[in-house]
Amino acid sequence: MKAVVRRGNALVVDDMAVPVPGAGQVLVKTLACGICGSDLHALHHAEALADVARRSGSSIIMDPLQDIVFGHEFCAEILEHGIGSEKTLKAGTRVVSVPVLVGASGMESVGYSNRVPGGFAQNMLLTEAMLLEVPNGLASDAAALTEPLAVGLHAVNLANLAGAGVAVVIGCGPVGLAVIAMLKARGFGPVLAADFSPRRRASAEAIGADIVVDPAVTSPYGQWSEFGVPATGGERGMVAMMGGTPKNAVIFECVGVPGMLQAIIEGAPSSAQVIVVGVCMEVDRFEPALAITKHLDLRFAFAYTPDEYKQCLHYLAEGAVIPDHFITGTVDLAGTAGAFATLATPQAHIKIIVEPGR
Amino acid sequence: MKAVVRRGNALVVDDMAVPVPGAGQVLVKTLACGICGSDLHALHHAEALADVARRSGSSIIMDPLQDIVFGHEFCAEILEHGIGSEKTLKAGTRVVSVPVLVGASGMESVGYSNRVPGGFAQNMLLTEAMLLEVPNGLASDAAALTEPLAVGLHAVNLANLAGAGVAVVIGCGPVGLAVIAMLKARGFGPVLAADFSPRRRASAEAIGADIVVDPAVTSPYGQWSEFGVPATGGERGMVAMMGGTPKNAVIFECVGVPGMLQAIIEGAPSSAQVIVVGVCMEVDRFEPALAITKHLDLRFAFAYTPDEYKQCLHYLAEGAVIPDHFITGTVDLAGTAGAFATLATPQAHIKIIVEPGR
Repeated sequence: MKAVVRRGNALVVDDMAVPVPGAGQVLVKTLACGICGSDLHALHHAEALADVARRSGSSIIMDPLQDIVFGHEFCAEILEHGIGSEKTLKAGTRVVSVPVLVGASGMESVGYSNRVPGGFAQNMLLTEAMLLEVPNGLASDAAALTEPLAVGLHAVNLANLAGAGVAVVIGCGPVGLAVIAMLKARGFGPVLAADFSPRRRASAEAIGADIVVDPAVTSPYGQWSEFGVPATGGERGMVAMMGGTPKNAVIFECVGVPGMLQAIIEGAPSSAQVIVVGVCMEVDRFEPALAITKHLDLRFAFAYTPDEYKQCLHYLAEGAVIPDHFITGTVDLAGTAGAFATLATPQAHIKIIVEPGR
Repeated sequence: MKAVVRRGNALVVDDMAVPVPGAGQVLVKTLACGICGSDLHALHHAEALADVARRSGSSIIMDPLQDIVFGHEFCAEILEHGIGSEKTLKAGTRVVSVPVLVGASGMESVGYSNRVPGGFAQNMLLTEAMLLEVPNGLASDAAALTEPLAVGLHAVNLANLAGAGVAVVIGCGPVGLAVIAMLKARGFGPVLAADFSPRRRASAEAIGADIVVDPAVTSPYGQWSEFGVPATGGERGMVAMMGGTPKNAVIFECVGVPGMLQAIIEGAPSSAQVIVVGVCMEVDRFEPALAITKHLDLRFAFAYTPDEYKQCLHYLAEGAVIPDHFITGTVDLAGTAGAFATLATPQAHIKIIVEPGR
């Protein structure tokens, strides 16, 4: 089979052996697989990612010196079942799955492994018990959005929306847009979105953000009172003394560069929940005393639960998310390296889908 | 009246006019007032504290260039009611109170104000509606512990103890010890406490910590499995797959120096709750990617609610906290400056109480 292989900081199309499914596994044909920001990062900084995985105690660690086939946002078609499989879903069924392969020797990441290929290959192995059938009528490219939307839904589910007067989304790349889409799918508003890029602001608006600002012109942190959110601890105390329940703000950090968290801590109102979804890979600096005085709650979001994954597939199938708001290009395996390069410019694209069978 | 006045980074005993209570206020005689770590900090770094207060939107901001009478951990006796007061509690009643004075011109901090004195003065003004009567038999020095215990209780209440397999308290100064006392008062265990100081470790043990370690010898982060807490996300996933509910860890940061938060992030197990109670006044550095990969929840604790304050007075009155475990010295106003100097050495004392009437 053909695959896009990361080899020494470059992506090359190469031939690989078709993998053989073990017990509880299926061999699939990859139909569509989105390029994630983490893939872009891992192309040039795989060593840093592996280091963080190792230090966080993960058992899923890739060796940057060996070949890796990226791709963890996929839709695929079942080709063949491993021996001893349940065969609940027949060959020919289109599926999505949490990108984890369970095997005899433990768990493998699908997309960041030296042993099994990710979705930028014509074939993959998946775990039978984790497969979700793609409902009829949902295109494969659209189904591949399940994974990035689940990242957004998990972040949204970490927030206590019941007491929130406003959700502010800082950064409208694929992660920020997924957060906006999931806030709207859950029926929450108002959502204020901020991004320097006009292209991304237009996407945020299309996806349903109620207010969209260019932070170069309008501070995303300047309007708390308009949303009924007391800005200071003193104002919160006054509302409580009058017998009210003061609303708070939920701020989603979807940028992931050094300094963003400190900017949010400076801009946040008292008692805000800050959900950190953007992955800052560098050492960051901030002022704990300010976070303490504001009584902030910083929750770091990572991945999602199987239930959240399933919920996102349903949101897509039910039309709660319009795939075209995310998918701005498709390429074949030969075009994948070029797509990685294109995505380095935030203005050009939101999500590019690789179609390995094209 | 006599008061210990902060004047240009020094503490001097000086004469001041006895303040006059306004509507809804009472004049009190200060019986006892604890010296807080924030007081030590404010003596030399009042400008930095005022800056953080200003930037956090607080309306309670002191001017470091003018006189300040510190002291916010107090027990006092009612002397006189302002005009139009309810007089629910008679003159002669011993009371504690959240250190906030409500007046015609808004709210004032009692202890960090240029306009009204804190507890290191023979008299203060307090808000009648916030007074709590000290139960008979509870000594005034002990009642003065209500405030620091409330800081600990608020931090404990921020944690989700229901799902916790262990609480780890990093740092056993007055704040860490208050957290330990409140965890035990709420019936939680096991509590693991860590401090480099033998003196403080002995206090932690006396107050009820189940396991006490010297971090120079034993890592406080090395024993998750002994408490039934899965260390990694993978291990958590395995517990969940077997139908279990994985326990998590609650870690209380009670040190407040740069680098502590990063050390905790490095040592924490997956999905830990980190409650930040130690006030780090400097810019701190950490790795967000590690906090994200571990799916950590960082909650910054500040102050307390009136209900938590009341609860702590009850804990003291009911004997759930032994005052002698905290109070290691008492001084008069003339001895206050010396006590500040002594407290700079963590080995010597836990809490020194100023008795302005002595």
